[in-house]
Amino acid sequence: MPEAAPDVYPPTDRTTAQRVKHRAAYDRETVHRILDDGLVCHVGVAVDGQPYVLPMAYGRDGERLLLHGSAASRLLDALAGGAPVCVTVTHLDGLVLARSGFSSSMNYRSVMVLGRAREVTDPEEKARALDVIADHLAPGRSSEQRPAEPKELAATRVLELALEEVSAKVRTGPPQDLAKDVELPIWAGVLPLATVAQEPEPAPDLPDGVEPSQAVRHWRR
Amino acid sequence: MPEAAPDVYPPTDRTTAQRVKHRAAYDRETVHRILDDGLVCHVGVAVDGQPYVLPMAYGRDGERLLLHGSAASRLLDALAGGAPVCVTVTHLDGLVLARSGFSSSMNYRSVMVLGRAREVTDPEEKARALDVIADHLAPGRSSEQRPAEPKELAATRVLELALEEVSAKVRTGPPQDLAKDVELPIWAGVLPLATVAQEPEPAPDLPDGVEPSQAVRHWRR
Repeated sequence: MPEAAPDVYPPTDRTTAQRVKHRAAYDRETVHRILDDGLVCHVGVAVDGQPYVLPMAYGRDGERLLLHGSAASRLLDALAGGAPVCVTVTHLDGLVLARSGFSSSMNYRSVMVLGRAREVTDPEEKARALDVIADHLAPGRSSEQRPAEPKELAATRVLELALEEVSAKVRTGPPQDLAKDVELPIWAGVLPLATVAQEPEPAPDLPDGVEPSQAVRHWRR
Repeated sequence: MPEAAPDVYPPTDRTTAQRVKHRAAYDRETVHRILDDGLVCHVGVAVDGQPYVLPMAYGRDGERLLLHGSAASRLLDALAGGAPVCVTVTHLDGLVLARSGFSSSMNYRSVMVLGRAREVTDPEEKARALDVIADHLAPGRSSEQRPAEPKELAATRVLELALEEVSAKVRTGPPQDLAKDVELPIWAGVLPLATVAQEPEPAPDLPDGVEPSQAVRHWRR
C-alpha cells in the first residue's frame, strides 16, 4: 500500500475524462467519501472478451478496496488470478429535469477503480478484512456478530484492490437550460433522491427480548 | 425484436447460475419488473482486455433496453461498433444481518443483460427512444418537455440492446443462521432500504408561478 500518499490520484490515459472535464475529480477526499457512502459496488471483469458486471458488497481500508465472496465463485476466481478489473460505485443523488430532454441529466457521484486484485490469504488478515466490510455496511456490526470460525474463513475468498488508478465523476446543481427555454411554462429543477433505512424487521427466529443493536438502531446516522 | 416471446429467457452457458441456483430467475416478468424499477444501469465494456463499468440512464421498450449519450462518447462509440456489452441493474432492498458475518447477506434484485448493442439512427426512432428514457426516469415527463430539436438529436447517440441473453438474481427474506447461533443474544433481521424522492428543488431561473408538474409531484407513486 502506498504511504504518505499525495492528495490526488494521478490521472492516467485510462482515467482522464475526455469530455465534461469539469465533472471529473481525482482527489482522495472526494473519492474516499463517495466510496464510504456506498453500499454496493459493480465489479466488471471480462472473460473471453465478454464483460460481466456484478453487484457486490465491499469495504474500504485506507488505500485499498476489499471484496469478498464464496471460495467457489467463478468471478472471484478470475479476479484472484489477476484479471483486469473495474470497480464502480455510484450514488444517484437526484433527477435533473430541464425544460428540454437534451439538457436533462442526473445528479450523481461515482468512482471508478481500475487495476488487478490480489487475494488475501492469511486467516487473521481475512478476518480483519471481513470486519471492515461488515462495518462498511453497518458501522459497528463487526463487534456485535459472532466471530468468524476457521472453516467459515476457509470458505470465503477475500480480495483487495489498491486505490491507485482511480477517478471520480460528480454532477451537482440545477439544470442548465438553454437561455431561450427558460421562459417556457415547464417546471424545471431537481428531484432529490436518497437511500433510507426503514423499520428493522426482526428475524422470525429471534428470541424474545433481543432488541435492535446499536448498528441497527443508529444505522449511518 | 422477438415477437410472441415465451415467458422465459432461455439460459445460456454464460447466464446459468453456477452456485446459489435458487436465487436465479429467467422469467420475463421478473426481469421486466427489475428493469422497470431501476433508475441507473451499470454498463460494462472491455477495451484491450480492461473492463470499464459506467453508470448510465436507460429505458426499456418491450424486449430492448435503450441507452443514450453524447455522440462524442468513447464508450458509446465502442458499443455502437458492436463490442460485447453487459448491462446490469441492481436494487439493494435491505441489509440481511445474521448472528454471524458468514450468514449475513443483502436482499437485492439484479438483472444482467449480455449482448451487442445496435445504434438507432433514424431521427424519429431516436426521438421516440429518448422519450422512453425520459419516461423511465420520470413517468410522463416526455410530454411535459420541449420536443427535441434536430441538432439535439444529431448530437445524441442512441443504442438499443435486445433482451435475449438475460438473467436475474433475487434474494429476499430473513437471515438464515446456523441452528447453533439462533440462541445467541445478537439481534438478527433485515434492515430494509428504499430509494425515496425528497422535496423538489425548483431551478433558480424558474419563472414565478410555474408549479411542479405531474411527473414531479407524482413521481413513481
